[in-house]
Amino acid sequence: MSAAVLPGSKAAAERAPIRFEKVLIANRGEIALRILRACREMGIRTVAVHSTADAEAMHVRLADESVCIGPPSARESYLNKAALLAAATITGCDAVHPGYGFLSENADFAEMVQDHHITFIGPPPRLIRKMGDKIAAKQAAAEAGLPCVPGSDGAVESADDAVARAEEIGYPVLIKAAAGGGGRGMKVADSAAAVTEAWRTARTEALAAFGHAEVYMEKYLANPRHIEVQVLADMHGTAVHLGERDCSLQRKHQKVLEEAPSPALTTEERERIGAVAATATRNLGYYNAGTMEFLYENGHFYFMEMNTRLQVEHPVTEMITTLDLVKEQIRIAQGERLGYTQDDIRFYGHAIECRINAEHPVTFAPSPGTIGRYHAPGGMGVRVESGLYTGLKVPPHYDGMIAKLVVHGANRQECLMRLSRALGEYVIEGVETTIPLHQRLMKAPRFVSGDYDIRWLEQFVTDPDPA
Amino acid sequence: MSAAVLPGSKAAAERAPIRFEKVLIANRGEIALRILRACREMGIRTVAVHSTADAEAMHVRLADESVCIGPPSARESYLNKAALLAAATITGCDAVHPGYGFLSENADFAEMVQDHHITFIGPPPRLIRKMGDKIAAKQAAAEAGLPCVPGSDGAVESADDAVARAEEIGYPVLIKAAAGGGGRGMKVADSAAAVTEAWRTARTEALAAFGHAEVYMEKYLANPRHIEVQVLADMHGTAVHLGERDCSLQRKHQKVLEEAPSPALTTEERERIGAVAATATRNLGYYNAGTMEFLYENGHFYFMEMNTRLQVEHPVTEMITTLDLVKEQIRIAQGERLGYTQDDIRFYGHAIECRINAEHPVTFAPSPGTIGRYHAPGGMGVRVESGLYTGLKVPPHYDGMIAKLVVHGANRQECLMRLSRALGEYVIEGVETTIPLHQRLMKAPRFVSGDYDIRWLEQFVTDPDPA
Repeated sequence: MSAAVLPGSKAAAERAPIRFEKVLIANRGEIALRILRACREMGIRTVAVHSTADAEAMHVRLADESVCIGPPSARESYLNKAALLAAATITGCDAVHPGYGFLSENADFAEMVQDHHITFIGPPPRLIRKMGDKIAAKQAAAEAGLPCVPGSDGAVESADDAVARAEEIGYPVLIKAAAGGGGRGMKVADSAAAVTEAWRTARTEALAAFGHAEVYMEKYLANPRHIEVQVLADMHGTAVHLGERDCSLQRKHQKVLEEAPSPALTTEERERIGAVAATATRNLGYYNAGTMEFLYENGHFYFMEMNTRLQVEHPVTEMITTLDLVKEQIRIAQGERLGYTQDDIRFYGHAIECRINAEHPVTFAPSPGTIGRYHAPGGMGVRVESGLYTGLKVPPHYDGMIAKLVVHGANRQECLMRLSRALGEYVIEGVETTIPLHQRLMKAPRFVSGDYDIRWLEQFVTDPDPA
Repeated sequence: MSAAVLPGSKAAAERAPIRFEKVLIANRGEIALRILRACREMGIRTVAVHSTADAEAMHVRLADESVCIGPPSARESYLNKAALLAAATITGCDAVHPGYGFLSENADFAEMVQDHHITFIGPPPRLIRKMGDKIAAKQAAAEAGLPCVPGSDGAVESADDAVARAEEIGYPVLIKAAAGGGGRGMKVADSAAAVTEAWRTARTEALAAFGHAEVYMEKYLANPRHIEVQVLADMHGTAVHLGERDCSLQRKHQKVLEEAPSPALTTEERERIGAVAATATRNLGYYNAGTMEFLYENGHFYFMEMNTRLQVEHPVTEMITTLDLVKEQIRIAQGERLGYTQDDIRFYGHAIECRINAEHPVTFAPSPGTIGRYHAPGGMGVRVESGLYTGLKVPPHYDGMIAKLVVHGANRQECLMRLSRALGEYVIEGVETTIPLHQRLMKAPRFVSGDYDIRWLEQFVTDPDPA
């Protein structure tokens, strides 16, 4: 590694903003297209990468250049650091946008990109690494001023230790894998005996799933909502929050529908958690886009984790702020200043995003296939993010999300009516989709009322007409 | 006619706001779909009407009910008042939305609708009638406080009279048919001899085209822009303006591209003409949506005409105000109060609309046909208004506009970049379209600079690379 100033680093930014000529988009699907569109609107050339399964993908067809980086297996293509770096180097890219998922929160990859004197469009690798370790992240968050769930403050080393800590925190408690995600290695316990048992099973599962048995413990919240705060920060010390997103509609820990603002928060709570998140961002020395995820119950916020990347649901924040988050990410990575402060951020109306998956709407069985008729809804306040087109093969190898339908309206009620009519217009043939699930949701009194928690959808999909 | 209070009248509104259950959409194409979407989002049932040529149109397929009102000829279908009234009555509609074009500015139709105790979603018929007569409109506008082009203040009765008035106004002058539109019966003259000749030809053309020979005269502006102000007023005396639209890009007096705000106005000019328009709206006793059209040259505005209906280009105003104009029209017609005043209207960023016609992009020859592959652009800030879909037959009988591509962005520059990328993504096969014309426009230095007048596009389409 040379002694030169790393591109994308604060030292680089302090010299002078640069302008990217060509960006490698290290992702696929709708987010690759999203990033391509932002680049094109900024006059930046784009290089798409694709597995052999994605050679005909929309983002590949629209990119200025494209490079095949491997076979369908994600491990050998979109997770293949060497292939991605080679693609970026050979095509002469001066920056890489990782999107979400895949290598977007891989600190090693971010460092490798920088070591090749290419800018990684994202936060400093050391903070990606820290926030990727749940225990370290919680400590850093607490130090930065974020409210945390009362918990073990570190790994729980024995069953006796687990019981002692649970008695301090109060039942029920949650035992979680330190290296985990997606619900694996996660157990709820409401007594000393249950804690002993849960500690053992969680460790076994964590070891099997992640290669690390380490687990920690925290207070279990019975009816929380998932509230997250979008933050943006430049390399020059300015950080702002862009309000919250309510992502309480989840199935198997996957978000299904997101909205902004949250129907559950008061203005005071909204401003308080936003200010806390922006301050923590500054305290952490973080830059680029990021999200602080919280559980919210009875007026209290509990920090869960920080996502050090763009999120799937970023469009709802874009709709209510009119800020283009991908362009902001690129500007920040170029070393530019935000050019606005918290007081300049205004919020307009309400926005909701439906994730549309190629899945059976009742059984959720994956439904890959070739798209037949395709017709996206249009009109006022409707935004579609999708790489689908008639004739496209939706491959079975990746995440099943094939489209995001986002609406903006004067208020939540208008969004619900707009979503209903837009879902009714959306034609996607050739694969099963979750559009019917969203249509049922629009008529579900609990959803319409806004009064639900992160466990409600799981019941709803099992029994769509609960008492 | 009964003595009962007419629906849609001020007297009706003063009793209590009503709620429409079912609206007849007396139009076709993208605007019929636009109105249908607004109704659906308000929980109002819709009745589509169609000629035999439009039986498979998108708005027909999506409507709750549909009625065939005649053969392809517009005169026998969309202009067939009796058929439309029968459709509204038989289906039990309580309101009719006329869209734009066709019968939207036909005072007789509006009165017939009201006489059948159905609400006409529009202004009072007497004002439709007055504003439809160019001479009466100009007098009413001047009385209401709108700045007018110096002119003959009424019909020019003889060639001698024409010369005398031209000498007062100053050359060049414009002679126009009183009943006219679309450039027919319109002549420019820059000398006494030319005025004599122009007066005769204009009368002959006017008689042939409109059945009335009457002509009037006004100052001819050499390099004006077309600036129009959107107004909204309720039946209770509140009127607001929603800023201006710049529609200076015209070909054969047809708008091709519209934007808001105008790149030519100063903030002071914008606020001044807006306030004048809102005041005139109140002075006229006008309600519902309307547009005051002006020519603008050297800091001066000259009233041309008032459009007493929704306009094709209304979405650019919606994009910068977030107000849904069709819903506002419906609310006003229901007798509701606006619920906001001028101080509540905020403007956000910039918006541009491209009209996409089924025409050859160079010769402008009409290009009806069957739509093959169809794929609309998506992503942030992109709105498509179109009833097109794969397999739809675009009939030869009507206006060739098949889609409107509207973008919103932080500023004009972002809109231009966004339009470029969205035009590049738009796939419409089976008919020729004017998309290539818009793509050339996006690269034309004069257009990009914002420095052009209403005559510039005509030169550009003839010689795309003028010095």
